[in-house]
Amino acid sequence: MQVTPSKRKLKGPKAEASGFLRSPCAVACTLDLVGDKWSLLVIRDLLRGNVTYGELQNSPEGIPTNILADRLKRLEESGLIAKSAYQQHPVRYAYELTEKGKALRGVLLALVRWGREHIPGTRTLESPAPHTARSRKPAGTQVRKS
Amino acid sequence: MQVTPSKRKLKGPKAEASGFLRSPCAVACTLDLVGDKWSLLVIRDLLRGNVTYGELQNSPEGIPTNILADRLKRLEESGLIAKSAYQQHPVRYAYELTEKGKALRGVLLALVRWGREHIPGTRTLESPAPHTARSRKPAGTQVRKS
Repeated sequence: MQVTPSKRKLKGPKAEASGFLRSPCAVACTLDLVGDKWSLLVIRDLLRGNVTYGELQNSPEGIPTNILADRLKRLEESGLIAKSAYQQHPVRYAYELTEKGKALRGVLLALVRWGREHIPGTRTLESPAPHTARSRKPAGTQVRKS
Repeated sequence: MQVTPSKRKLKGPKAEASGFLRSPCAVACTLDLVGDKWSLLVIRDLLRGNVTYGELQNSPEGIPTNILADRLKRLEESGLIAKSAYQQHPVRYAYELTEKGKALRGVLLALVRWGREHIPGTRTLESPAPHTARSRKPAGTQVRKS
């Protein structure tokens, strides 16, 4: 489900007339979706090839599980990610970026550039080993124990 | 005063060894400084030429005064902005971006590009009228009422 800004509580003085959460400013509206300490790290990890809840939870920042669950829900509601079951019993989901979500790569690159230039010692994360993506079973192919 | 990440509480599992707040990732460290709904809007407004507390408070998003005061304090501690008194009785400050702060323009441009392309109806804010910057009196030149 796509949540449009107009469905949320309006706060800014000029927002009510426009239907936006705070203002029609493109920066403000983008921050309304990903303006927190974790959302763009989840996007980063999905771009790096992490797709399961467990893989995302294994980020170097140690994202708390309740925050990860909340951010995945919000990002899906905003149309930035989509999930599909890769296992049925119990159901386990794989997450992937939509085209809209993938387009945030430019924002991440700008953050990386600024961080590397202005915060000594910071670096770009390496991509995880490719075997992590191949170890998952596709949905419907799991052999159940009888 | 410049607050380095090592002075704050370390949270990530790999952060303690590195001295970073969450991880050495440039994205994570940048978000530790400006990863919220308001900091980059304050940076945006400073780039647009708003420099006094009153001008910054007059943003279209209607930033609450306690949040504005907190973000100005944090941005100054992070070395992203600097303040100087433009009036002495009572003291009033003008805020300006440091070179490090100005360099966040690239992050803002990436946010604008993404927002305009993916959130219908959003736009780039126009710069305020130039008279707002000229209406302030420089520090030390105010005539006090006797």
